[in-house]
Amino acid sequence: MLLSKFFMPVLKEVPKDAEIISHVLMLRTGMIQQSSSGIYSWLPLGKIVLEKIIDICRKEMKEAGANEILMPTLQSADIWKQSGRYEDYGKEMLRIKDRNDRDLLYGPTNEELVTEIFRTHVKSYKQLPLNLFHIQWKFRDELRPRFGVMRGREFLMKDAYSFDIDYASSIKSYNVMFISYMQLFKKMGLKAIPMKADTGPIGGELSHEFIIIAETGESEVYVEDNLLNFQSSLENINYNDDLQKEVDKYTSFYAATEEKYDPNDHKKNLNLVQTRGIEVGHIFHFGQKYSIPMNASVNDSEGKSISTYMGSYGVGLSRLVGAVIEANHDNDGIVWPKEVTPWSYNIINLKSGDHTCDEICSNLYTLMKENSLSVLYDDTSERAGAKLAKADLIGLPYQIIIGPKGVKDKLFDVKNRKSGDVSKLSYNELLNFLNIKL
Amino acid sequence: MLLSKFFMPVLKEVPKDAEIISHVLMLRTGMIQQSSSGIYSWLPLGKIVLEKIIDICRKEMKEAGANEILMPTLQSADIWKQSGRYEDYGKEMLRIKDRNDRDLLYGPTNEELVTEIFRTHVKSYKQLPLNLFHIQWKFRDELRPRFGVMRGREFLMKDAYSFDIDYASSIKSYNVMFISYMQLFKKMGLKAIPMKADTGPIGGELSHEFIIIAETGESEVYVEDNLLNFQSSLENINYNDDLQKEVDKYTSFYAATEEKYDPNDHKKNLNLVQTRGIEVGHIFHFGQKYSIPMNASVNDSEGKSISTYMGSYGVGLSRLVGAVIEANHDNDGIVWPKEVTPWSYNIINLKSGDHTCDEICSNLYTLMKENSLSVLYDDTSERAGAKLAKADLIGLPYQIIIGPKGVKDKLFDVKNRKSGDVSKLSYNELLNFLNIKL
Repeated sequence: MLLSKFFMPVLKEVPKDAEIISHVLMLRTGMIQQSSSGIYSWLPLGKIVLEKIIDICRKEMKEAGANEILMPTLQSADIWKQSGRYEDYGKEMLRIKDRNDRDLLYGPTNEELVTEIFRTHVKSYKQLPLNLFHIQWKFRDELRPRFGVMRGREFLMKDAYSFDIDYASSIKSYNVMFISYMQLFKKMGLKAIPMKADTGPIGGELSHEFIIIAETGESEVYVEDNLLNFQSSLENINYNDDLQKEVDKYTSFYAATEEKYDPNDHKKNLNLVQTRGIEVGHIFHFGQKYSIPMNASVNDSEGKSISTYMGSYGVGLSRLVGAVIEANHDNDGIVWPKEVTPWSYNIINLKSGDHTCDEICSNLYTLMKENSLSVLYDDTSERAGAKLAKADLIGLPYQIIIGPKGVKDKLFDVKNRKSGDVSKLSYNELLNFLNIKL
Repeated sequence: MLLSKFFMPVLKEVPKDAEIISHVLMLRTGMIQQSSSGIYSWLPLGKIVLEKIIDICRKEMKEAGANEILMPTLQSADIWKQSGRYEDYGKEMLRIKDRNDRDLLYGPTNEELVTEIFRTHVKSYKQLPLNLFHIQWKFRDELRPRFGVMRGREFLMKDAYSFDIDYASSIKSYNVMFISYMQLFKKMGLKAIPMKADTGPIGGELSHEFIIIAETGESEVYVEDNLLNFQSSLENINYNDDLQKEVDKYTSFYAATEEKYDPNDHKKNLNLVQTRGIEVGHIFHFGQKYSIPMNASVNDSEGKSISTYMGSYGVGLSRLVGAVIEANHDNDGIVWPKEVTPWSYNIINLKSGDHTCDEICSNLYTLMKENSLSVLYDDTSERAGAKLAKADLIGLPYQIIIGPKGVKDKLFDVKNRKSGDVSKLSYNELLNFLNIKL
């Protein structure tokens, strides 16, 4: 991408109303723009990162055998009355009347709607297990939206719903989602910690939150120190295997959110770390909570009607963009992990307009594109200092800095954004570093 | 994809409330499910096709130099009051009050919101031309939603917005979008006819609709017969060129929707065909209609403040899925054009459970996947007749039919869904047909 053609309105000032660093940096880099309280537009840079996070999540869901659907944002109030949650949900639910005075609502979650789809089409145990997921905007009318996309009102969520014929298989489905979450967060360059959690308005008896450790996190959490450094060797997951053992590896450690934490737990001789975190995923096993009131039943192998066993599984996709930044930044700006960076390389032409600099940069850019490298080329006419500061701010992993001095010396500066290390490379060394063979 | 793992609830009955063929076929093939009046869930088969249509549209927009953003579904009423459209829009606009009694609305279109983004960040002619597009759900509270996704209330639209420093360049931007629309519909396997059109609540003095000819279309149209068969040779478009000539090639023909048609036009010695069509795109040039009331101005090269010249450009993405089916079906079901078909090939195992049939089908499926072919394998235990009928109903371009007789004779039936022709191929001929080299 040529920066001159890319709409990235970088702000010089630190926005006043932004309280946390991810919010500040997303505004400063022109990733988002608030349109109303807790409602944001995603500008091109933000959109690219959001899309990368969506892709990773979608691929892992499909890998885990889930079928992608897309439910609408607006739902009829009727199904929420059937499940009994219409009144329960309180003021966070945005209630709407259409022109015919029918009650609609902007879905805050989709247990009811997906159960309605299920009961319409699935009548036999032979069609189970089934997992349906979708990626759609949700709305929760938070009393005090803040922290940018971290606690917005309109937000993007991946939600999956599992349907099984009995308790045992629904626990298997829960375990598949549990492990797929560990995988997808890892693939985003994040270390998520699974923790026992309350079930809140979703309900059920078994639930885990997935938390990214960050000082600015909204939740206080208590974690056994060994879990913080624990890495399960999940290279080749087969989602058809029984994953109980894999899940147990994580749940054998102590980890709890504030609501689940009991001060007496310290007495169990555990080395607990008290820290803060950001919830990026939440999974629930609630059995027949929705299938009974909503009549979602299937025939088992003996022809007996069984209310299906369900679970639901959410990932906060828009929030994750903020969470990645909370976990990956320094004083100069964002430091994108390679997994979700908008581009891998940033060519910086220190003297646009200089014939030799332009030619070298432009040839390198073309060559890198031909080799399918992901690259942003700052071809604008800003001064060198501003370009370098902007490159640090937007935080692509590698900067290739090309100016008159380097051109004369035939040496190119390659800066590792994370370590700050700068290597001076000849053109051949540079191509070698980029894995380009001429 | 293995059909046994794919959630595709095919209906045997023709749904009663479906009036047009695309609606019937989308329900019968389990592509969509209505959740409320004019509001649909997309089931996996529908989602795949919708995603293909989105991808083609997105790529063409980027090719044409537009920047992708993502605006929210809910908008503040304030900006609509600024533009003067809040009252104008009438009952089709879904008006909402949040918990703090603030007026929101579900965006039916985004001229106001994108103008607000523009005026926040763009101050100089040097940042122009600019084209911002997004792909987002919209809501129009139609009095009588019908025809399935063709006239739904919640629908997916691609909308682009161009910003220019003067009238002449804004016409250039309009022309770029005009030609990009011809390209993207062609890439979807559709022949769209551009027609002079009314501007309605969007406003402006120049507007074209893009119409797919279909007997079930909601609009009556009058088209010069030569235009119906006209194919411009637009293989290699350079969007940086002046495209006026390309646009003129189309607009030199007579083509008008009912509102723009004048019976006297026949007297001009034109060979007019009266037919029906489906509107799948609509573009508007409205100059300063929004930029003046909303103060979206930039400085020109002499430092003078200019209200920016704008256009907007919509493609009905969810409606296009229906339009493609209206234009591509027969008595047995859908006949997908290769450009947007969910998969290219359909392996049909006529006798699942038969060891040899299973082995041959399964090996072929693996081989095709290894060769990156897009294939659905019907590995279910349904009887042969039902499988063949289902294959015709869902309409993938090629069926590879494998049963005990073919296995014995070492001949495989390959059926072209569109022509109905069946070829009997040996295994080597089949691999040759699939372009697979062992």
